Formats: sequence, C-alpha cells, structure tokens
Amino acid sequence: METRLVNSLDFARANFESYVEALSQLIAIPSISHEGYDPDAIRRAVEWIEGKLNSLSMDRVRVFQTSRSPILFAEKLAPAMGKPTILIYAHYDVQPAEPLEAWDSDPFAAARKDDYLYGRGSSDMKGQFLACIAALEAIQQSGELPVNVKFLIEGDEETDPEPLDSFIKEHAEVLECDHCLNVDAGMLRQDLPAIVYGLRGAMSVTLNVTGPDHDLHDGMYSGVVENPFHVLARLIAGLQDENRRITLPGFYDDVREIDANEHAAAERHPSDADYYRQASGSPALIPDDEFLPIERIGARPSFNVRWVEMGAKKSAIPVSARARLAFRLVPDQDPDRIYSSLVDYVMQNAPTTVSWSFENRVSSPGVLVPVESDAVRRMQAALKATWRVDPLLQRIGGAIPVVGELQDYLGIDSVLTGFSLPDDNIHGPNERLHLPTAQRGIEALIRYFFLVGEQA
Amino acid sequence: METRLVNSLDFARANFESYVEALSQLIAIPSISHEGYDPDAIRRAVEWIEGKLNSLSMDRVRVFQTSRSPILFAEKLAPAMGKPTILIYAHYDVQPAEPLEAWDSDPFAAARKDDYLYGRGSSDMKGQFLACIAALEAIQQSGELPVNVKFLIEGDEETDPEPLDSFIKEHAEVLECDHCLNVDAGMLRQDLPAIVYGLRGAMSVTLNVTGPDHDLHDGMYSGVVENPFHVLARLIAGLQDENRRITLPGFYDDVREIDANEHAAAERHPSDADYYRQASGSPALIPDDEFLPIERIGARPSFNVRWVEMGAKKSAIPVSARARLAFRLVPDQDPDRIYSSLVDYVMQNAPTTVSWSFENRVSSPGVLVPVESDAVRRMQAALKATWRVDPLLQRIGGAIPVVGELQDYLGIDSVLTGFSLPDDNIHGPNERLHLPTAQRGIEALIRYFFLVGEQA
Repeated sequence: METRLVNSLDFARANFESYVEALSQLIAIPSISHEGYDPDAIRRAVEWIEGKLNSLSMDRVRVFQTSRSPILFAEKLAPAMGKPTILIYAHYDVQPAEPLEAWDSDPFAAARKDDYLYGRGSSDMKGQFLACIAALEAIQQSGELPVNVKFLIEGDEETDPEPLDSFIKEHAEVLECDHCLNVDAGMLRQDLPAIVYGLRGAMSVTLNVTGPDHDLHDGMYSGVVENPFHVLARLIAGLQDENRRITLPGFYDDVREIDANEHAAAERHPSDADYYRQASGSPALIPDDEFLPIERIGARPSFNVRWVEMGAKKSAIPVSARARLAFRLVPDQDPDRIYSSLVDYVMQNAPTTVSWSFENRVSSPGVLVPVESDAVRRMQAALKATWRVDPLLQRIGGAIPVVGELQDYLGIDSVLTGFSLPDDNIHGPNERLHLPTAQRGIEALIRYFFLVGEQA
Repeated sequence: METRLVNSLDFARANFESYVEALSQLIAIPSISHEGYDPDAIRRAVEWIEGKLNSLSMDRVRVFQTSRSPILFAEKLAPAMGKPTILIYAHYDVQPAEPLEAWDSDPFAAARKDDYLYGRGSSDMKGQFLACIAALEAIQQSGELPVNVKFLIEGDEETDPEPLDSFIKEHAEVLECDHCLNVDAGMLRQDLPAIVYGLRGAMSVTLNVTGPDHDLHDGMYSGVVENPFHVLARLIAGLQDENRRITLPGFYDDVREIDANEHAAAERHPSDADYYRQASGSPALIPDDEFLPIERIGARPSFNVRWVEMGAKKSAIPVSARARLAFRLVPDQDPDRIYSSLVDYVMQNAPTTVSWSFENRVSSPGVLVPVESDAVRRMQAALKATWRVDPLLQRIGGAIPVVGELQDYLGIDSVLTGFSLPDDNIHGPNERLHLPTAQRGIEALIRYFFLVGEQA
C-alpha cells in the first residue's frame, strides 16, 4: 500500500499541470444557474464532466434531467469486495460574474498569476471537484480503486436546492454509501486544513411591497400616498434591534447553546475579530459582548438583505419595492417556523397603505455532523499527513443544503473539508484558487481514499 | 380688438392639426437630460425649437451653451411702444421612458388614440410649450403682437436646476420683463382650469453608505460584518415617525401655517381623499387627522426615497448601498438648514461599522406668488372666458425651481397655469396629452396675450 500511495502522490505531482489545464477548460464554460443566463453553458458543462467521468472508466455515468439543471450520477466499484463506498458530492454551477468591470481578467478565461488561477468557479467549486478527479486519476494510475466511488454532481447549488432535494428523495437506492465526501467547505489558512462539522442553514424569501397602481410623480403625491419602499425599509429596520439581534418573537428559542468545549475551541480559533475586520475591509465589526466572531458566524443565526429593488431613477413613488431577506439558521431552528413568524411580523406591522406578498422561499436547516466517525478520523489523518499539522475542527456560516438532505432523508453523514481559502473571493470579482493549496488538497484526497480503503 | 381675437381663435381652431403635427415631431426627439442618454437628441431638440422660433419671426433667437444642456433665448417686440413684456418659460427636456415595456406604444413616436396624443413629453411639457407657440402664431396671423414676448427655454428641468440658475443670475438684463408666463403647472380636471400660486420646493441628495471593501458571501460574514443597506434602511426608517412626520429636529419650525382662507379653499377643493385614492390606485392613503390631502400636497413638507441601489442579486454583503432622499419643502423652510440637520442626523445615528457620504445635492425653496396682480387677474379672465367657469387658485406639490429663481434674483413674479391633467401620466409610462384640453389651452393663451396687451 505504501508503494501505491507514493506512486499515486508522485503521479499527481508530476501531472499537476493537467489538473490546471482541465480546470481552465471548465472555467471557460460559464455554467451560471441563475435565471437569465445562457442555459447552453449548463449543457456544455454537463457534457464536459460526462467526458471526464468516462475517462475515469466509471462503471456507469448517467445524466438526470431535473426541473432546472441536469444532475450527473456515476459510480465505479472497487474490484475487491466489501470495500466502503464514498459518495463524492460536487456542483458544477457558478455564481454570475457581474460586475464584470471589477475583474482584472475575463472571469471565464482562466488567468494564472503567481501562485493563483483566477476565474469564476476556480475555487467554488470547479477546482475542488477536479481535485477529487485528479486524486482518483492518480490512484488509478497505480492500480485498482481501494474504495467504491459514486459521484453526485448537481447544477443548481448557487440558486435552488429543490432539484437536488427531489433527486435525493427519489434515488435513495443508487445513492447508498458509507459516507459522503463534500469538499465544498473550505479551509482557513494555507497552513491550516480544516474539517467542518457544523453548517448554518438558511431561510430566504423575497418580500414584495406594492403601493400605487402606477408610478407617481412625488411632487404631486408625496405626503399623501405611501412609497412602498418606505414601508419595506421600516419593516427591514424593525427586524433587528440596536444590537442587531433579530426581533421576531421566539426567533432564538431553539438555537442550540454553545457548550464549554466549543467555546474553548472558538477562543483558540485563528479567526479572531482582527482577522474578520481585515478580511472584510469594514471600518468596524458589529459590536457583540456575548459571542466571539467565529461563534457568531458558525453557531449563531443572522439576518441579511441580499438585494433590494424599486422603480427607476425618477422622482417617482414606485408601484412596488422588493427585497430578498435571508436568515442564516443554526441547529435546531426550524426554517418553516421562522418563515411563519416573519409573515406574522409583516402582517402586524405593514400599514394598510400597501399590500404585500412573499415569493421564492428557499429553506435549509442548520446541520451538525458527528466528529467521532471513522470517516472523519481518516480525513483528519490524511490532512495531518499532508500539512503536518492537526486540522481545525470548525463550524462555518454558509449553508450546504445537500449535507442536511443526505442526513435527513438517507441517514448519510458527510465529511466536510475543502481547499478553498477565505481570500479566494468566491462569489465576488477576481475569484481565484491558490494552486499550491489545491496541489496539497489532491495529495490529501489520495491519502484519504487509501485510508478509507484500509478500513474494511 | 374683438375681431382680431375672433380671427385668431378661428385660425387656431382651423390649424389645430398643425399643432399636433409639430408636437409629434418634437416628441420624436428623445431629449432626455439625464446622464447616460444620447446628448445628440438634446442638440436636435434645440435645433428644432430654433427653427420654430425663427418661423415666428422673432427679433432675435440665441442659443447659450451651459455646463449641461443649451438654453434658448428669443424675443420679439410689439410694434406699439410701451406694451408689457411677457417672458415665456419652457423646458424641452423630458424624463427617461423606462420601463419601456410598460408603454403601449413607442414613447418617442407620438400615437393618437381617441382624444389623446401619447408620447414622452406630450404633456410635460412639449405640448404646453407648443401651445404658447400656437397661440402666438394664431395672433400673428391676424396682425401684430399685442405684447412684447421673450422666451426662456431650458433643457435641464428634469435633472439639474444649476444651469438655468446660473443663466438667470448672469443675464438679468435680457430677461427683463413685466411677468413670466409658466404653463408647466397643470390643471385639475378637463372642466376646471387652474392657476397655481404656491409651489413646494425640494432638497434632494444621495446618501451613500459604505461597508466592506469588497462584496462578501453572507454565509461567511453575516452576523459579524454590517450590511450597509441595513444601515441605510434604519436611517431612512428613522426619518419618519409612525404618523410619517419627519423627525429631523426643527424640521417643521419654519413651515408657514395654513391660514383660515386657505383652509376653507382646501375644503372646497375637488381633490379630496377619495380623488387621491382613486388617482393613485393605492390601497389606502396615509392617515392624517390634521391636514387635508390637498394641504399635505401643497402646503406641507414631505419626504420620499426616489431610488435605492445595492450590490447585485447574489448572496452578498455589498460594498455599498445608496438612496436618493428627496424632501419637498414649503415656504419658509430653508433647504440648506434641512440639509444640515440631515447631515447631523446621519452623523448621530450611523454606526461605526460603515462610512457614509452625501452626493449630488439639489435644492430649491418653496414659493408663493402674489394672487392679486394684474397678470394673474388677466389669466383668470382668459381661462374663465374659455372654460366658462372660475379657475381654481391652488398650491401644488411639485417644484418649479425657475419660479423661485426669477423671484429671488430678478424680482419677477410668474403666472402659473397649464393644460396638463392629473391622469396624463407625466414621468410615467403612457404619458399623454388630452387634445381637446390643449386646444382650449391655446385659446385661453390667445385671450391672455390680448388681455395683457390691453393693459397698457
């Protein structure tokens, strides 16, 4: 085994440029799942990945149509019987790149500069997905697979959890596995790998406030006719108190307390207040006497308005104003209950001068995965062997809905790690991947596949 | 004189289609003064109007360049000495037409349907300006001008009062006149002409709130880094109390009280609460126990957010959020003092998590013009002779900055009337002009020019 590991690691190192080349090809396909973008790019991304999976000689590769973007499934059994099965999750869709003028290079033409590869999806998560592929390629160059491998690859991670949610419910059998490997969770610093055991959930919904039935000149109507944006602003302002605590009744009732161990770990966590201030470039962080920044991100719920819209740039009282309200939730908050109390709040506080509605609700609960499992221990060992440092066990603030869905519907726990860095600018302009970290990531994945294979 | 009046009225009636044709030509030139629109349209509008003025055989027609759109000045003296001089004000610029899909016809191709001519500027105010031209044409067909006439025609009324403000200060001599005729003030119903004696002023400014130095993923930062839009929403919400009274300290100190006569007139005014509700299509008006709707529009200040902007539609905490804050002011509120108290308010209430700035401030004070003047009396008579009903004397909610500028700098009072109707959708989609009302307007203007000429 040791020889095979060394051969695989050597192969991966020697062929790292092939990884960069493959990633550059995939970045060049602008597979944005948001409405209004070219759906043909989604089709081309699926075809490209299908080709890649076929080149790995998978036993079967299938493309499933969904209500939005196709889902790819693939599997390859290890020749040896009784090996564990790892379900590798990935998504091939990316965020839009606007504003394009904020990029120093074309977001859909990979650009290499120093140790980085720039481009939309380089880090989130085309680069992460292809690290898994590169690891399996290296292993197969040295012999047979040590584990059974399945792939579950979706194309709506950035927009809508529904298609994958439905797919998981309907395909329990094909997804059967020992655990899921999800490399969409990132790490903290180049020298500090991480395993994530907690994720915030989310409940986001669009609040639409409607006033007059046509745009009105504000000189001729202001003071008598309500501007629906004013109502929206008051409702949004009222959702948080002066300490930015969310005011919805019962909002914090089900928030799981942070225990002493977790708090002690948070105090040792390298992401302190100074880190967050510098990484964000904010004049100052929101003050909080009760919780550390890392606790507020990982273990406390939050509220954020993602976008707002009202009429054109005219002196008008507009027909309507809309905002996307996003709550980040933690275990054991119930997204449906939060939504109900939000509806109650608007019902009680919106004046009769306007009508209102909620649209496009998307929910996922917060998740904690067990940290004592064999799979997590093997990933810890693989990361430690690669970086020569104990990986950080942490909770993060983002949602990865698939983790909760696999847990809830199929009882499948995920091992969450990844090789993206906080300054990769995911979702922003000049998204990039730190190539030496990606290379270490591939090596860690090779070790991990072998370690899981030894388990049986 | 009576014969000349009848001849002029006959000519105007017989040639009304020429008026519609000229208006259609001018509507076809999209002379939008907002930034980002084709400046060549402004140039073509100026050329078209220059041609029109020359066809009236004005003594001189001049085009003045300004920091933005050109200003046209023209004059023609009556052959008889000692006649009064009327300065006719107009603007040739129009509001943008977006959203274009909300129009039933091309906003820049006049479309006639039933009694209406549709198109951007048909009512505000290309149609009003050309009514003055048509009246003068009709008068000149029957003989010499009974008054001296000057034209002051600007191209930035919809965007920036500064160029005209500077022009008025610098050209006091050429603008010398007995009074200004301004037909940009509109009327109330097809059967009820109006003279406006009070106008609200305005102080509008953009508030820009800045947070992080790049867009941040809200899962990775929300709860720790402030969303600048949240701050903006809180600041906007805090500017009004639950009765929508503006909370800035001292805001109402200088508001001139509504006297008993004005209140009695407001009670008789046809625009009651029911009118405003129906005309706006709002579910309900803002409740107010103290003031009638027409008082709130004409004699009370108000606050309105004209537009708001923040990042793209992504799950991001954006770098910045901006809103255009517009206060409508009444005599004797001082726009500079209101601005100072707004700055104080933001200074005291904005948290240290963001920085902020104000940009693009535009101010004009509220104005009252004397209703006892000869000029107003003659306009009343001209309107009454045309509509066979006493015209309404009223205050309106919009600002017409030129009225205050002429009053403040040159001591020139304005006669404010016009033939636009509340359902002309000015500034909105499907702007239109009611042609029978425009025709009556031309007739009233013919009578008015003769009546002022008799005065000497």
